[in-house]
Amino acid sequence: MTRKIRLGAFLPGGGQHIAAWRHPDQPADGATSFEFHRRLAETAERGLFDAYFLADGLAVGFAGAREGGNAKVAGFEPVTLFSALAPLTKHLGFIATSSTTYEEPYTTARKFASLDLISGGRAGWNVVTTTGDATAQNFNRDTQPPHAERYRRAHEHVEVVKALWDSFEDDAFLRDKDSGVYYDRERLHEADHKGVHFKVKGPLNVPRSPQGHPVVVQAGQSADGRAFAAAHAEVIFTAHQHIETAREFYADIKSRAEGLGRNPDHVLIMPGISPFVGRTEEEAREKYDRLTDLILEEDGIGLLNGLTGGTLDLTGYDLDGPLPPAPPTEGLKSRQVLIRQIADENNFTIRQLYRWVASARGHYTVVGSAVQVADTLQEWFETGAADGFNILPPWLPTALDDFVDLVIPELQRRGLFRTAYEGRTLRENLGLPYPVNRWTAARAASEAAE
Amino acid sequence: MTRKIRLGAFLPGGGQHIAAWRHPDQPADGATSFEFHRRLAETAERGLFDAYFLADGLAVGFAGAREGGNAKVAGFEPVTLFSALAPLTKHLGFIATSSTTYEEPYTTARKFASLDLISGGRAGWNVVTTTGDATAQNFNRDTQPPHAERYRRAHEHVEVVKALWDSFEDDAFLRDKDSGVYYDRERLHEADHKGVHFKVKGPLNVPRSPQGHPVVVQAGQSADGRAFAAAHAEVIFTAHQHIETAREFYADIKSRAEGLGRNPDHVLIMPGISPFVGRTEEEAREKYDRLTDLILEEDGIGLLNGLTGGTLDLTGYDLDGPLPPAPPTEGLKSRQVLIRQIADENNFTIRQLYRWVASARGHYTVVGSAVQVADTLQEWFETGAADGFNILPPWLPTALDDFVDLVIPELQRRGLFRTAYEGRTLRENLGLPYPVNRWTAARAASEAAE
Repeated sequence: MTRKIRLGAFLPGGGQHIAAWRHPDQPADGATSFEFHRRLAETAERGLFDAYFLADGLAVGFAGAREGGNAKVAGFEPVTLFSALAPLTKHLGFIATSSTTYEEPYTTARKFASLDLISGGRAGWNVVTTTGDATAQNFNRDTQPPHAERYRRAHEHVEVVKALWDSFEDDAFLRDKDSGVYYDRERLHEADHKGVHFKVKGPLNVPRSPQGHPVVVQAGQSADGRAFAAAHAEVIFTAHQHIETAREFYADIKSRAEGLGRNPDHVLIMPGISPFVGRTEEEAREKYDRLTDLILEEDGIGLLNGLTGGTLDLTGYDLDGPLPPAPPTEGLKSRQVLIRQIADENNFTIRQLYRWVASARGHYTVVGSAVQVADTLQEWFETGAADGFNILPPWLPTALDDFVDLVIPELQRRGLFRTAYEGRTLRENLGLPYPVNRWTAARAASEAAE
Repeated sequence: MTRKIRLGAFLPGGGQHIAAWRHPDQPADGATSFEFHRRLAETAERGLFDAYFLADGLAVGFAGAREGGNAKVAGFEPVTLFSALAPLTKHLGFIATSSTTYEEPYTTARKFASLDLISGGRAGWNVVTTTGDATAQNFNRDTQPPHAERYRRAHEHVEVVKALWDSFEDDAFLRDKDSGVYYDRERLHEADHKGVHFKVKGPLNVPRSPQGHPVVVQAGQSADGRAFAAAHAEVIFTAHQHIETAREFYADIKSRAEGLGRNPDHVLIMPGISPFVGRTEEEAREKYDRLTDLILEEDGIGLLNGLTGGTLDLTGYDLDGPLPPAPPTEGLKSRQVLIRQIADENNFTIRQLYRWVASARGHYTVVGSAVQVADTLQEWFETGAADGFNILPPWLPTALDDFVDLVIPELQRRGLFRTAYEGRTLRENLGLPYPVNRWTAARAASEAAE
């Protein structure tokens, strides 16, 4: 089978771009409207996307935002939202973000297994460690745990969750009404985990779900993040401004995964792409300007401050002049360094910088006709920079509609994208293998050795 | 308006009765089938029930059960399940159980607010403290916290959740595209809670939901449980074998609530009822015997052991003889005492006892024609024992169908039950008031004082 592009749809109801909610096409209450999310899911499924992807936070994000201007101040909890969308769709996967720092593995394992059961095998878990003191303060702490500690906890959290997902072997349920045997006790196992951060006995009280394990997704780009991704992730969401850094990242992750004994084809790398698509390049540029002109100055400044973790206070600077000198970069996150690189490389004024990052927030922005956008995706896909893409429409629903109606057919014409869903589950559509239950595997190995 | 009976439907997909899954009508995989739960929700809505109610546990319940015989070993997580059922229904409420001991208030507030948003105002939270060391061992502990500590934590947990549900005032969202004001910062508030068990700053990142607060439900019957119910619960699920104890409980809770300054009409008491309904009494008795005959001896013994918290080991006793002498009752839970009372009052043999409690597990069992069942409900409703009932069909779906097709019309003929949903939300259907946001109330009070 020819290798195909995988596509995720990153569709926060309020839109991705900072001014999206002010766009005439975007319902102002999109972030909190269930019907609007239903419309988005149906469109993504019409476009044969692999999955609907949602980020998540566990606090109101005030950092740097103009008071009252942030349309992302409130919305749905993603696992409940996706559970509600699952029966209204047939094929679309649902990748929800959930935190390893502020949740317990038993709860994580349970909610994703339940979503997988409800959706008939279409659940994915985007593993995040969750940054910020504001979140810590909603969970009995004053400050967040240090970066390295969060990642150690994340590793252990994922290990426990996977063990819990193996509680029941695939053939554990007999449900024999005559004999009264509902399940085979020999096929039900405790995780019996005793670690540094967690002590979890198990078993999980949700049956083995259709995918065995919901698909594990991850997005970290720091050294800790790459190590984590190589060890655990089956899909990696990543942000690049240049095809060269994307290729470097791609090669690095595939090689790290192989070094850990994993098949690199089962680690899918999907950079984020923010597409402005027109029937012509000129129309696409008009769409870009139309949205970008909606950014209020105060929001642009706040955005840059927020994206750099509060390290870039621009109060009092001329917006049409250059950025102030960089502070020491030590301790900065990869995203914070990236924002400054964009300014340096393009020789951007402050205003030009916020106009550029307002859409993609560090991801790659393409502005062009369907052919031009498809050219970009094809180049990234065929030259070792991507296995697929997370599409971040700048506003909704029409930027998503544009992608589905204009770019998808172009990719299909080139034989780069499916014309119908191939599989029954998200895992099957992504071409990822079914994870054999560890207890079943151990028994098979022990029987083979006899 | 005439006072009407409120009805909850207690519908675990595997059936309530210990042998339910072996009943010819019950799908053997009902506990883990989403389509079956959908069928149950649709039937409950056809029957104009106020709400679908689900219990929940955070561990596999092995206690006392025959190995491999427990059909409740695995199922859905209730909040994800109800989120999925919400868009498939229009009026039915959804009351999901969630633990105050093993979850964090920010997470609790968020998932129920999200369910309320998804369902257009049909969410309820059944507050439980969760018993058992098996659960503790899934959450980093060896043993469960003591009873009194669990209840103190529950009080504080509920207080924090309610404060978080008040984060946004009702009119907080302006969403004015022209000015760029999405919300009024003066109408968004921090909980700023610093207590014994929790420190939670807030605000919640979910908007004020359609009900303001999802309906708070509770089921404890101990002294701690009654105090908690009187302070917080708007619906109370309770178990009684006699109308006299139900009346005592009803009067006690209403008086406690009034003593705390609450309107007793806004505390709805709903005992559990396990109905075997036939077109005639004889047919109902046949249904009772048909199901009861499916109980395997070992399951019956295990059930009694489980219901008494492992205090009643019957191994080696003659099943057609009396129960062994009672151990000291000190430290026993109300449910454990109740089981023994049933045996004593009815002079039951061991076999007779497990046959009787297998269906209702301590709740009231009625076996009869629709007229007889309606007579019982009417008597309880009109003589100070109940504001409504949680109906626990012993097996599914036909025992639910029987209730909907035979008993509901009889209650309607008597003017005791609705003929159409009155309201838009669960709260409106139950006749419960909309909770005024504390910040809005404080501002109104302060303005009135000026």
